[in-house]
Amino acid sequence: MTDAGGSNTRHTSPVALVLIDVINHFDFPDGDRILKQALPMAAHLARLKQRCRRAGIPAIYVNDNFGQWRSDARSLIARCLDSGCAGQPFVEQLRPDEEDYLVLKPMHSAFFQTPLEILLQYLGATSLILTGLATNSCVVCTAHDANMRNFSLYVPPDCAAARSRREHLLAMEHIQQMTDAKVTPSSKLRLDALRRAGRGHKKGMA
Amino acid sequence: MTDAGGSNTRHTSPVALVLIDVINHFDFPDGDRILKQALPMAAHLARLKQRCRRAGIPAIYVNDNFGQWRSDARSLIARCLDSGCAGQPFVEQLRPDEEDYLVLKPMHSAFFQTPLEILLQYLGATSLILTGLATNSCVVCTAHDANMRNFSLYVPPDCAAARSRREHLLAMEHIQQMTDAKVTPSSKLRLDALRRAGRGHKKGMA
Amino acid sequence: MTDAGGSNTRHTSPVALVLIDVINHFDFPDGDRILKQALPMAAHLARLKQRCRRAGIPAIYVNDNFGQWRSDARSLIARCLDSGCAGQPFVEQLRPDEEDYLVLKPMHSAFFQTPLEILLQYLGATSLILTGLATNSCVVCTAHDANMRNFSLYVPPDCAAARSRREHLLAMEHIQQMTDAKVTPSSKLRLDALRRAGRGHKKGMA
Amino acid sequence: MTDAGGSNTRHTSPVALVLIDVINHFDFPDGDRILKQALPMAAHLARLKQRCRRAGIPAIYVNDNFGQWRSDARSLIARCLDSGCAGQPFVEQLRPDEEDYLVLKPMHSAFFQTPLEILLQYLGATSLILTGLATNSCVVCTAHDANMRNFSLYVPPDCAAARSRREHLLAMEHIQQMTDAKVTPSSKLRLDALRRAGRGHKKGMA
Repeated sequence: MTDAGGSNTRHTSPVALVLIDVINHFDFPDGDRILKQALPMAAHLARLKQRCRRAGIPAIYVNDNFGQWRSDARSLIARCLDSGCAGQPFVEQLRPDEEDYLVLKPMHSAFFQTPLEILLQYLGATSLILTGLATNSCVVCTAHDANMRNFSLYVPPDCAAARSRREHLLAMEHIQQMTDAKVTPSSKLRLDALRRAGRGHKKGMA
Repeated sequence: MTDAGGSNTRHTSPVALVLIDVINHFDFPDGDRILKQALPMAAHLARLKQRCRRAGIPAIYVNDNFGQWRSDARSLIARCLDSGCAGQPFVEQLRPDEEDYLVLKPMHSAFFQTPLEILLQYLGATSLILTGLATNSCVVCTAHDANMRNFSLYVPPDCAAARSRREHLLAMEHIQQMTDAKVTPSSKLRLDALRRAGRGHKKGMA
Repeated sequence: MTDAGGSNTRHTSPVALVLIDVINHFDFPDGDRILKQALPMAAHLARLKQRCRRAGIPAIYVNDNFGQWRSDARSLIARCLDSGCAGQPFVEQLRPDEEDYLVLKPMHSAFFQTPLEILLQYLGATSLILTGLATNSCVVCTAHDANMRNFSLYVPPDCAAARSRREHLLAMEHIQQMTDAKVTPSSKLRLDALRRAGRGHKKGMA
Repeated sequence: MTDAGGSNTRHTSPVALVLIDVINHFDFPDGDRILKQALPMAAHLARLKQRCRRAGIPAIYVNDNFGQWRSDARSLIARCLDSGCAGQPFVEQLRPDEEDYLVLKPMHSAFFQTPLEILLQYLGATSLILTGLATNSCVVCTAHDANMRNFSLYVPPDCAAARSRREHLLAMEHIQQMTDAKVTPSSKLRLDALRRAGRGHKKGMA
């Protein structure tokens, strides 16, 4: 493997920001319900991403391929930014740029049949800030898979959404209890401290 | 998951053609040696791909991401088709089109941390025609991984290449003996029969 | 692979009963709370297992190895059946016999770094009846992983337990909504019909 | 996960000895040919294992389950040590004891659907000494999988065997070239130095 950085610098960092399914047309059953819950959180997540950039924390988009098996993220982004797309007001706040990483996933978990794990290894990341859609589906699956792979987790509740407030809150409670995640609002995350140290791998495993 | 076909038809087929690392700039150690061995086989593989298209057998490119974690296959193809790229004479004969599938891989095996397995499940493919580069590296790793996942294998020796003729022949012998592959020149593959029946999964497993 | 049946007959079946972490000493934080919730369900699960046996549905125990990396399930069972073990009254109702399968797992999901998937392929099982401990931990992780691998799921709520009734019920609701599982009391499962047909793989995937 | 050591001490070590399929009845096609090649190497491997023990390097047996899905390694060992078993003269020199780890595998690679990776993480091992049977089958598959997972490899050629001397030598050449393994006779391995430092993960990955 060669260098992975857009600017030819390798983004070694003990922590990475993961954005799940935010490049989204919301054109699926209950998509309108999720969009309604998601719109208010877009600004929070956009701000967190900016702060991560300044702190040197890389952003990794992990996104459904929506059945298009052509590894063509650019077309997917273009479709979601089209003015006729329901997701446009959400996606325009969160579009990836040249420095961001982007991995396509075929199913719910960001780890299942994707190169996310090896990308994290490449970056040296042992802690993840998990964000995106939907809290009780892809986010919870990814949190479990990250936990089984020994990553330390931060899941800011203002940077995720589900079909309803109740589903979101129950999923956050589940994630906190069952994946040992720190549940802290994004504005309270101390990114510089994370960037310096991470939490390291959990459980005293090597 | 929604429909995966470029023309909105789903390519259900018991057999799939897999092309490994043929979108290639050959700009790595020993790349010139592999290119020299690979150039004569490009026409064979291009012809096989055409015959597969006519027989309704889908083609799946599984390709190194060359350290660019942006799921941007289009840029990768463009780079390899540039007139200044050593690989241009090879790649121009084998460029994917709208109907082909394309999966990026981070390491040697086409199955390791990629969605290939779920794509094959989606297509209904239980047999694979394995081709590409290099016979004794990514092709042999993929053949072992396909064998452990119970796929039936066809590996036409005129559609793969390595750094030297000797390495190619030894790897083909190894693949034939150790992964239970049928080693048959591409011109002898009876694609219509394969398309109708596949060989089915091996070993009497369900 | 050779025959896997204790009686040298291969248990081909479109459906399998999966029992998660029921061989258990309950000697861990909150173990006493889980045991209290689990004890009343042991009889239900024991009865379901008997009915599965009569219907020709194989039972697969997937169990934590409790940090003993020696593939020695027999010692683990013996320890849990010891009269001094808190789990004894629970485990004695559910002990595996010669015809059952047993797979050790290192983490929460029954699929993560275990041979469960290949065993299910060997048995020809495309539907799973998921049972065991704890509903909101290993059961929910396994349900998500089974769903991503396209298995049809049945999760009888009277054959699983968690630390509290609330956690159990919320987890069952989550499983039903998010993994497309049928949530049916064990006494209502029509095993003969399942044994004949399974539900087949989901989602129209091949 | 709790402590994994037989003597309740955790065997943290940057390097581990892996013994593939040495608990073997050799009762399969070509088993007699492999046994003939394997017998002369048993003493070498037994000596290497003793030296590893003294140097504090843990030994991990990764073994075919021979279609018995019961995680009952003890019965498997007993069968192979029976005086009527062809493999007895081989296995008696290499039987595992209380301090060794033992993982069952369902297919060729020691990593495929097994907990080996998480056990190595637990031990802190980033380098592997690969040994066992057969060089051109399970050993080569495991070497490729270890390489893709970024482990540093040592493969002593006097501690592996195949159906013929030619197959063994070609497979060793392949392993050396394609998995970046150090191919050094077991007597030349400087275990104390390895034990202190390992080679670390490869390729500058974190």
